[in-house]
Amino acid sequence: MPQNKSAKKVALVIGAGDATGGAIAKRFAREGYATCVTRRSADKLRPLVDEILAAGGEAHAFASDARKEEEVVALIENIESTIGPIEVFVFNIGANVPCSLLEETARKYFKIWEMACFSAFLNAREVAKRMVKREHGTMLFTGATAGMRGSANFAAFSGAKFALRSLAQSSARELGPLGIHVAHIVVDGAIDSEFIRTAMPGKYALKDRDGILNPDHIAENYWNLHCQPRDAWTFELDLRPWTETW
Amino acid sequence: MPQNKSAKKVALVIGAGDATGGAIAKRFAREGYATCVTRRSADKLRPLVDEILAAGGEAHAFASDARKEEEVVALIENIESTIGPIEVFVFNIGANVPCSLLEETARKYFKIWEMACFSAFLNAREVAKRMVKREHGTMLFTGATAGMRGSANFAAFSGAKFALRSLAQSSARELGPLGIHVAHIVVDGAIDSEFIRTAMPGKYALKDRDGILNPDHIAENYWNLHCQPRDAWTFELDLRPWTETW
Amino acid sequence: MPQNKSAKKVALVIGAGDATGGAIAKRFAREGYATCVTRRSADKLRPLVDEILAAGGEAHAFASDARKEEEVVALIENIESTIGPIEVFVFNIGANVPCSLLEETARKYFKIWEMACFSAFLNAREVAKRMVKREHGTMLFTGATAGMRGSANFAAFSGAKFALRSLAQSSARELGPLGIHVAHIVVDGAIDSEFIRTAMPGKYALKDRDGILNPDHIAENYWNLHCQPRDAWTFELDLRPWTETW
Amino acid sequence: MPQNKSAKKVALVIGAGDATGGAIAKRFAREGYATCVTRRSADKLRPLVDEILAAGGEAHAFASDARKEEEVVALIENIESTIGPIEVFVFNIGANVPCSLLEETARKYFKIWEMACFSAFLNAREVAKRMVKREHGTMLFTGATAGMRGSANFAAFSGAKFALRSLAQSSARELGPLGIHVAHIVVDGAIDSEFIRTAMPGKYALKDRDGILNPDHIAENYWNLHCQPRDAWTFELDLRPWTETW
Repeated sequence: MPQNKSAKKVALVIGAGDATGGAIAKRFAREGYATCVTRRSADKLRPLVDEILAAGGEAHAFASDARKEEEVVALIENIESTIGPIEVFVFNIGANVPCSLLEETARKYFKIWEMACFSAFLNAREVAKRMVKREHGTMLFTGATAGMRGSANFAAFSGAKFALRSLAQSSARELGPLGIHVAHIVVDGAIDSEFIRTAMPGKYALKDRDGILNPDHIAENYWNLHCQPRDAWTFELDLRPWTETW
Repeated sequence: MPQNKSAKKVALVIGAGDATGGAIAKRFAREGYATCVTRRSADKLRPLVDEILAAGGEAHAFASDARKEEEVVALIENIESTIGPIEVFVFNIGANVPCSLLEETARKYFKIWEMACFSAFLNAREVAKRMVKREHGTMLFTGATAGMRGSANFAAFSGAKFALRSLAQSSARELGPLGIHVAHIVVDGAIDSEFIRTAMPGKYALKDRDGILNPDHIAENYWNLHCQPRDAWTFELDLRPWTETW
Repeated sequence: MPQNKSAKKVALVIGAGDATGGAIAKRFAREGYATCVTRRSADKLRPLVDEILAAGGEAHAFASDARKEEEVVALIENIESTIGPIEVFVFNIGANVPCSLLEETARKYFKIWEMACFSAFLNAREVAKRMVKREHGTMLFTGATAGMRGSANFAAFSGAKFALRSLAQSSARELGPLGIHVAHIVVDGAIDSEFIRTAMPGKYALKDRDGILNPDHIAENYWNLHCQPRDAWTFELDLRPWTETW
Repeated sequence: MPQNKSAKKVALVIGAGDATGGAIAKRFAREGYATCVTRRSADKLRPLVDEILAAGGEAHAFASDARKEEEVVALIENIESTIGPIEVFVFNIGANVPCSLLEETARKYFKIWEMACFSAFLNAREVAKRMVKREHGTMLFTGATAGMRGSANFAAFSGAKFALRSLAQSSARELGPLGIHVAHIVVDGAIDSEFIRTAMPGKYALKDRDGILNPDHIAENYWNLHCQPRDAWTFELDLRPWTETW
């Protein structure tokens, strides 16, 4: 739940791409949060930061390899000391690269887990250390269908997303009674993004009839989750287009 | 998602008690919905209706035994023809009476299912018939922890709540692609109600530290679910106090 | 786990049709259990009983409407007093009649639940009362995919099977620590039966490549579950043909 | 399902410790399988191999760091070319080291996943490549409660076990239709092992009343899973002592 705004509050989005992460950052910026966004390359964050600033919001871009412990430790320390306390943490890095189990390489299997789970652990731990001292804060993890069921040709991605869901669940059970609201959002369907537009044009064509998820609509749920008072917290919700088979 | 308000829109709450159901009715009334509330005895609905009217809202009380097919058929027909199209349907009848399996009576096992599941089927079917013709509408089912796991001494209640969750899931998969948003809300924890205050004073004492669910906070989530655009619908979310072990 | 055979032990199969129930009865008869089989009409049990007797086993047919409390109470009392203690209880009544939610009748919705769940409760309760006194026994419930997920056009059947799974789970948690092994078997696929042969010839054609479940193979798992020592009990397992999509 | 024994068949157990893995190896050796067992240090496998040999079975010990791709590739090639086709694959490496999320180190979080999940992927992939060519084989993964729910202080272990369950599920869905039986066994409770005896004496004391799992009883289920004909395969079953709360 949003606290009183006497001090500047930070919303941190790890993995702010052109779609979901960016939309979430904009949603929290609109509410007055000092929004911190990260990607491996800060350059790519420029348009997002500019858009937030143009709308009168506050935004800060950070280049951060979320898989590197030292970088993550420094990032969180940097934000907390120079911008403000992290009130909202959003982990939003995906890594969906399908492959048959028989042909999956060790390198890729590792890398997908490293990006979609290990980096979540590193960032979550550093943020949680601060939040538990303040006894409040919200931690939101972007999940996927693949985190709920393992499918043919999705061994690597599904493994990482199962592990991420476990991280969210373990965190919720450990940190909830300490005042931290942890939630896991299961995005089940294609998202309106550049990636889907170019890589899955058939899916993208569903956009006309609301068959793919609008990032802004996803973001609205993140905001609502953050607004929940602590007597009625959601740990998990799913989001899918009305046309999606499940 | 709320439609344009050219015509009066109805929000129907089956089982509007003093806590959750009442709070949901008030929440939708506040948004301009003609709120229809039902209980077996209409007398007990008086305070709720008065409160909504006093706040400038519209409310109608109906005595209806939700387990009787003819009554349900007549109720829905009556509302649709005299008040307006049902845009939101909320099923909120509980029946939590714990008992050892060894001592459970056939009569009570049946009755709990009849109240918490069979009546949901009857009402949902009648409402769904109308909604599918209009190709939109929202159906919200109040679930419970007992609908997710069977526990010692909860065979009857859990059975009814599992069946209710199944009804919601089957409905979502059948009616979703027809434009109807179906959702199941898992309330996991004690609710701030007269029942908990008198029957479980130990639980009730947690209220001071937000350890029991505030009905208004539950209701906010029902409203949010209804507001979701159809490209990003939630089927299921859980709600629990931060102190709850799960 | 099978106990010492000093006294005659009974295996009771509620709903012993031509396929799964019959195969289970034969499997336990082969191990020396006095097998009691029930159906609404005892006539239809004749071939099964004859087959068991011809193989040197012991079998008793009972006409019993599993939905009628008095009949169930009398049945269990009768078996316990005239044949022997019920060591194994198998509930195997199905009622898979698909229908759109919009067209489902109250009568059929009720009846499917009554057959597939309510009768399980009645029989399980009566048997459990005896087993807890002896501090051992095995209770096996035949579940289905529909008990794990609600699908379009399966509201009634799925509701009953969810409720049955809940009954098994509640029973396991209540009766396990009292020495009773309760398990739920999720049969996910078509079974080699007269019903499938005539009603779903396309499915039946998969038999040539082991694409439908052999009742004897299902039965083997019931036997194995019963044989598990109490330090390593299974509550739930699934069974499906290798070709089945899930 | 066991195939005809014209040629020697191999059962490979990755992670054959003193408890579960060893018991599984002995169970398959008893049925005539050439049993191959691995650990990081082959020395520790000596007593197990000796026991199998003394009982008239065939056993081969391999030192193998299951996390090293080259070692795994060489191991599987070596077994297939010098001993025989791997008919049964059992992955049994655990890594249960609880820790608060707040204090978990990156090194340990990674290592637990590497041992309990990444090594499963490496070994499973190499074995599956061979099995799919032969169109049969059984792959069994030892899971845990932590693979079903994330708990406070179990972020690392739970994450690895969730990922392992995902691997098993993805493999089952990809390899099942190719003739490979993949199963995941959820061991929910303490196992009668040297580790439990010394580290959790309170748990160990439950042994007198069958409150901890006997490895031989666990192994029996692995054997039964392997024996299932392909028309009735189990993907998942749980195993727990009768006294265990769940």
